[in-house]
Amino acid sequence: MAEAYNYEFFNVSFPAEYVAHVEINRPEKLNAFKEVMWHNLSALFDKLSVDPNVRAVVFSGAGRAFTAGLDVQAASEGSTFAPAPVDSARKANGLRRHILEFQDCITSLEKCEKPVICVLHGISFGLALDMSLSCDVRISTADTKFSVKEVDIGLAADIGTLSRLPHAVGNMSWIKDVALSARVFGSEEALRVGLVSRVAADKSAAMKEALELASVIASKSPIAVLGTKEILNYSRDKTVAEGLNYTAVWNAAMLQTEDVKEAMLSGMQKRKVKFAKL
Amino acid sequence: MAEAYNYEFFNVSFPAEYVAHVEINRPEKLNAFKEVMWHNLSALFDKLSVDPNVRAVVFSGAGRAFTAGLDVQAASEGSTFAPAPVDSARKANGLRRHILEFQDCITSLEKCEKPVICVLHGISFGLALDMSLSCDVRISTADTKFSVKEVDIGLAADIGTLSRLPHAVGNMSWIKDVALSARVFGSEEALRVGLVSRVAADKSAAMKEALELASVIASKSPIAVLGTKEILNYSRDKTVAEGLNYTAVWNAAMLQTEDVKEAMLSGMQKRKVKFAKL
Amino acid sequence: MAEAYNYEFFNVSFPAEYVAHVEINRPEKLNAFKEVMWHNLSALFDKLSVDPNVRAVVFSGAGRAFTAGLDVQAASEGSTFAPAPVDSARKANGLRRHILEFQDCITSLEKCEKPVICVLHGISFGLALDMSLSCDVRISTADTKFSVKEVDIGLAADIGTLSRLPHAVGNMSWIKDVALSARVFGSEEALRVGLVSRVAADKSAAMKEALELASVIASKSPIAVLGTKEILNYSRDKTVAEGLNYTAVWNAAMLQTEDVKEAMLSGMQKRKVKFAKL
Amino acid sequence: MAEAYNYEFFNVSFPAEYVAHVEINRPEKLNAFKEVMWHNLSALFDKLSVDPNVRAVVFSGAGRAFTAGLDVQAASEGSTFAPAPVDSARKANGLRRHILEFQDCITSLEKCEKPVICVLHGISFGLALDMSLSCDVRISTADTKFSVKEVDIGLAADIGTLSRLPHAVGNMSWIKDVALSARVFGSEEALRVGLVSRVAADKSAAMKEALELASVIASKSPIAVLGTKEILNYSRDKTVAEGLNYTAVWNAAMLQTEDVKEAMLSGMQKRKVKFAKL
Amino acid sequence: MAEAYNYEFFNVSFPAEYVAHVEINRPEKLNAFKEVMWHNLSALFDKLSVDPNVRAVVFSGAGRAFTAGLDVQAASEGSTFAPAPVDSARKANGLRRHILEFQDCITSLEKCEKPVICVLHGISFGLALDMSLSCDVRISTADTKFSVKEVDIGLAADIGTLSRLPHAVGNMSWIKDVALSARVFGSEEALRVGLVSRVAADKSAAMKEALELASVIASKSPIAVLGTKEILNYSRDKTVAEGLNYTAVWNAAMLQTEDVKEAMLSGMQKRKVKFAKL
Amino acid sequence: MAEAYNYEFFNVSFPAEYVAHVEINRPEKLNAFKEVMWHNLSALFDKLSVDPNVRAVVFSGAGRAFTAGLDVQAASEGSTFAPAPVDSARKANGLRRHILEFQDCITSLEKCEKPVICVLHGISFGLALDMSLSCDVRISTADTKFSVKEVDIGLAADIGTLSRLPHAVGNMSWIKDVALSARVFGSEEALRVGLVSRVAADKSAAMKEALELASVIASKSPIAVLGTKEILNYSRDKTVAEGLNYTAVWNAAMLQTEDVKEAMLSGMQKRKVKFAKL
Repeated sequence: MAEAYNYEFFNVSFPAEYVAHVEINRPEKLNAFKEVMWHNLSALFDKLSVDPNVRAVVFSGAGRAFTAGLDVQAASEGSTFAPAPVDSARKANGLRRHILEFQDCITSLEKCEKPVICVLHGISFGLALDMSLSCDVRISTADTKFSVKEVDIGLAADIGTLSRLPHAVGNMSWIKDVALSARVFGSEEALRVGLVSRVAADKSAAMKEALELASVIASKSPIAVLGTKEILNYSRDKTVAEGLNYTAVWNAAMLQTEDVKEAMLSGMQKRKVKFAKL
Repeated sequence: MAEAYNYEFFNVSFPAEYVAHVEINRPEKLNAFKEVMWHNLSALFDKLSVDPNVRAVVFSGAGRAFTAGLDVQAASEGSTFAPAPVDSARKANGLRRHILEFQDCITSLEKCEKPVICVLHGISFGLALDMSLSCDVRISTADTKFSVKEVDIGLAADIGTLSRLPHAVGNMSWIKDVALSARVFGSEEALRVGLVSRVAADKSAAMKEALELASVIASKSPIAVLGTKEILNYSRDKTVAEGLNYTAVWNAAMLQTEDVKEAMLSGMQKRKVKFAKL
Repeated sequence: MAEAYNYEFFNVSFPAEYVAHVEINRPEKLNAFKEVMWHNLSALFDKLSVDPNVRAVVFSGAGRAFTAGLDVQAASEGSTFAPAPVDSARKANGLRRHILEFQDCITSLEKCEKPVICVLHGISFGLALDMSLSCDVRISTADTKFSVKEVDIGLAADIGTLSRLPHAVGNMSWIKDVALSARVFGSEEALRVGLVSRVAADKSAAMKEALELASVIASKSPIAVLGTKEILNYSRDKTVAEGLNYTAVWNAAMLQTEDVKEAMLSGMQKRKVKFAKL
Repeated sequence: MAEAYNYEFFNVSFPAEYVAHVEINRPEKLNAFKEVMWHNLSALFDKLSVDPNVRAVVFSGAGRAFTAGLDVQAASEGSTFAPAPVDSARKANGLRRHILEFQDCITSLEKCEKPVICVLHGISFGLALDMSLSCDVRISTADTKFSVKEVDIGLAADIGTLSRLPHAVGNMSWIKDVALSARVFGSEEALRVGLVSRVAADKSAAMKEALELASVIASKSPIAVLGTKEILNYSRDKTVAEGLNYTAVWNAAMLQTEDVKEAMLSGMQKRKVKFAKL
Repeated sequence: MAEAYNYEFFNVSFPAEYVAHVEINRPEKLNAFKEVMWHNLSALFDKLSVDPNVRAVVFSGAGRAFTAGLDVQAASEGSTFAPAPVDSARKANGLRRHILEFQDCITSLEKCEKPVICVLHGISFGLALDMSLSCDVRISTADTKFSVKEVDIGLAADIGTLSRLPHAVGNMSWIKDVALSARVFGSEEALRVGLVSRVAADKSAAMKEALELASVIASKSPIAVLGTKEILNYSRDKTVAEGLNYTAVWNAAMLQTEDVKEAMLSGMQKRKVKFAKL
Repeated sequence: MAEAYNYEFFNVSFPAEYVAHVEINRPEKLNAFKEVMWHNLSALFDKLSVDPNVRAVVFSGAGRAFTAGLDVQAASEGSTFAPAPVDSARKANGLRRHILEFQDCITSLEKCEKPVICVLHGISFGLALDMSLSCDVRISTADTKFSVKEVDIGLAADIGTLSRLPHAVGNMSWIKDVALSARVFGSEEALRVGLVSRVAADKSAAMKEALELASVIASKSPIAVLGTKEILNYSRDKTVAEGLNYTAVWNAAMLQTEDVKEAMLSGMQKRKVKFAKL
């Protein structure tokens, strides 16, 4: 099964039933991202999204860091900052196309029908936040060093951090503090403000927690899990009234699942619950 | 006065001036809800909303629990999961009607013009969250056991929890964690993430705090309290600019209250303030 | 340079390179606001917004308090509560005009292109919250006394507190608790719920922290800082998808800054970074 | 069947299979509305909405006019303009409750799951527009006299005309022209700007057209008709992207109808199509 | 009274009771706009907005044309296209400030509390559309030549035409046709698609119609007229549900006008109606 | 150049400078669409969108019809109506994935950076409307037969018609009339209500008009044309205030084009204007 997920710079494994583990694998560069990597990331999660054998995903980084962020050197050699044709307006249009494409790749994490649990350890700068904010649950370790790093290289973070932070963390004073100063902060602070919901002692403890949570989620009705992720993401962006109406339409179909019956019966019969694939 | 509020499965009393107390009263079933109960709840709060003798409401559960949630057995015997006519589409439309009606009943708590303070103690599963998230202030006790229980019975919570949580708690990682896993959590965690704003030692202490807060609110200008609840609910769902404009139109009428003068005069005259009924 | 900022009831100084300090200066009245003051505040921040020599602003109050809020006595003598012409509808229109104008003045803090760090100390009631919620970062002191005071004088807060609180603090239960009761709370509580992101021991420590943060921000690319503030404010009010699209259009122009190159080069050359004026 | 629809001031009949006809019946007062009438209207359409024997509705007025609008005399004797208690703010809250309740009654026409075709003839002033804009299709006659009459009695139309006109007619200059002047206009103008989509020679011709259209609609799949009305109303109010997403969720359930097969088979077998009840 | 409205390039007169007439007065340049003119326009309409002696405004151009649009020569000499400091990003920020300021000036027409009737005759290019789309009613003449001219000078119209056209005219195919081609079109086409609601034979006939309409509007309750303009503008931009709620809050205050009584009494007493000033 | 656009069932040619012509080419089936066709359509327009040699596109159908819509027979054999796994909820999720994918393909027409002019002739049913409403300008012929056909096969149109019609045509009564009845209508009616903006005598006349319009658009600044399409689509979906702000950010970059200078100089020098490629 892992063979179907052969993407450069990523390891994909299946450590438990219905659980996938995606690991960024460029440890010699602290998992810094170059263009091929975000395209691979996107292709990979688009596939996980519709894979009937996957019900929850853990996302982490190999080596000493989750990711140091964008590989600025590669980017400056690549297309992003390439000389533009003719004038600033044409250059602007090229940049706009490029940013939208990059954003779309990272948004694949959010659009993945299956919940994604992100483990952040060590250096977690810049793109580390863009990506982890596209995931559903964030777990960090005692040694995680976070930074919304972008102002330090002269730009406003544009791949999602600034758009998702105000909807992920309810503390605008803190968000402005770290985003305007690019200062490094640790897990204790991240936990206090709600950027992460759990902090583990070290990476292996964090991976263990993440896999356990993924296994719990994978043991639930995939119809119920899919709907919970979708409706929470929808409601985050909409009024309560819109959220309620959307939920009613969504569940008009989804309550017709056999999983409700199976969940109840297995409980009464005290046997392991078993849901059909999605 | 309490006689006017004679609804099965609910006790209504008036423990202080302008303060109503609504108690769910089906303790032998841990206050599990069947259909008649949410209709009664709605009718009851629609009446409190316009009752000139009520300025704040406390909402709690009798017995060992706030509520164990939906009475699944009653529901499975009732209309919700009844065999649908002819095809899945027609069944879907029936379910949609049913969900919208159920949601509307719970939304009565939010639409009530008077603030509602919810006391959650003991088992507070499923519908406990849907209902308490429709209230204004949430107080729990040292022994409260919370769970967004719905995924455990094969469905995405559809009566409000998933639509209201992202607007009540600013910690999306935690929201996803508990909503996708259905795990039980306690008051300490609920306080840390902001699901509740106060935790009391036990139920009687919680009730005392709730009644004191309700009495404080009931002692304020009912015009000011009404506007504060309405504008906060409106602004939660809208942009800051929309919130400001709405506030201006709202207060164009509401600043013309005699309560401003009364509030100032009573302060200068060092006498008890007395506001006209709404 | 300070001479250009000669506004009654405000001291403006420039304590560090590219950093402005605005101090409310009516200490004998605990910095209570009368009408001329909010007009001056607005004019002052509109000028700072486009001043190329300013990249970050600290905002604080002289004397024993940040501000006791609206000078109710001055207001009652002034236009707000003046007898209205003819009927309630015409009075309402006059009030609406007045509120919108007052709100616009306070919104100047939010619209200022440069980040504003607010230091709240001592009494910080009513308008103190309206104003500080329009700022980017809030720092308080061990002795700060906060109150959403308006219900105590018979009205719903209308200059911004109720519209901005639900987008600044992710704890609706707490917001309702303090806004409906007008109770006084302190810095520990403010920090826990995320109303402020830092608490200092006393005012001079708070000013020191604020100036240091302002200096850090002022040392970054002004293009990056401008974009970060603008996109965070935009995204706070919009869906994630809208935020991403806006960011792409914004950065299509803003990535064409020389600051990116300067930030990288100065890093490699281990010299102080130097950005052109905005 | 008509017996179940016994509401004062309304005649309800069933002139064709699955087609209901609702007629306002107070011809001696040109069908002017008093309070009981809009409550009856609402109750009536809420019932039609879920009646499995109804798939389309025609709505018209008995006598010489569709309706002259609000019965101002009855209103002035009734609660609307009754002396308010104590102060303008309390009066405002009473008016707000009253307007919201009145609006909800008229919105029943829009919320009715079955399409409503409105026939406007003769005097069609004020409330005539509020109501007909809540319907799906508007047909008028050569002699219809329309007027957004409200400014003539000193108020801005508040039961729906001003909120629905800009979403029903794509000609804001014309909308402002008639709404600000209250001038009377005829069917030719109404057809040109798109307020009505058909004009018939006289009332009997209009009724004939309306019933034929209703019969056509009633002959289609009720699942398809329900979805078309719902998605068009939803999309009118939302962005194209939101409309598309909602449609996808809606049809995820609704495409599972047997009606698709029946529609195809009946076509191939050249027999009358027959759909199950909703 | 006209003396209070002494603004260069504009004639202001008061041709009828409560009616103002604003005329663009730079006929030797076909009323082409330079920067001082849009600032004057804005100041002028901000004053009319709160002038109790004005209840409706007619807006037209002196000489052979309404306006040929932006005075491109003046603009190219002025600040708009001035060499930018240092880099494209800083230039972009300067342009953004400039465009926002220019837009705000034109939006004064829309924000004016009193309805504005625009008469377009002769050349009506570019800014002619930006401005007239900010007005409430548009009347043209047999010889009006319209053009969304901006693509012809290399830019997308940025002062309002592209944002307001889709909300003023319900024919997106036609909007794209004229906005992408910059082709000139006449009054017949403008009337057919709903850009204007009336076409007069020539300018004097158009002025006569405009003044008559303004007089009719000025004879109505100013409270009713104010509300009708405000609610229509609000509803144009919002969902029907939001429009209804806003209307209810608005009218909670505005129905408390004496104008309702005066409108009814004057009708019964068959005398001229007389409303108090706003 | 045409070789790069080798997609089955489509002919692509370049009849004029910077103008592409895309022709649906399955005339033996009245251009009915099967799955491969909408994927090809999408790929094709995604390529045109970024092709520097293309500035405007004409889209039409080969043979006797624009398109008869979905190839229902192929669809019923294909995946859409395939037996679903296990239960209705899982089937619903499969359908949702399928609809979203299909919608995305058609939205490629709208997302194409270059304006698309659609020529509709002969049978133009179902998908013909979904696709043409995704285009910018619609031109039809004397013999075009339109129908929102979907209710006739038991479903609500789900690939865009219902979401885009209310934003393309300002006549909701007419939209409901044709969408609920599936009745066939002609070009005269389509022109009157604004579904098309031009009607030509026959197909060759329509193609001539479309190519002339495309050539005019292709002769303008590509920066100006790109911005005009983008801002109009954005503004269609947003409030006027949001549209204005977006325009300001957009033009902050795009006004820095050399095209403004070139447009002015070529005018003064009376020579053909020549713009750099995008």
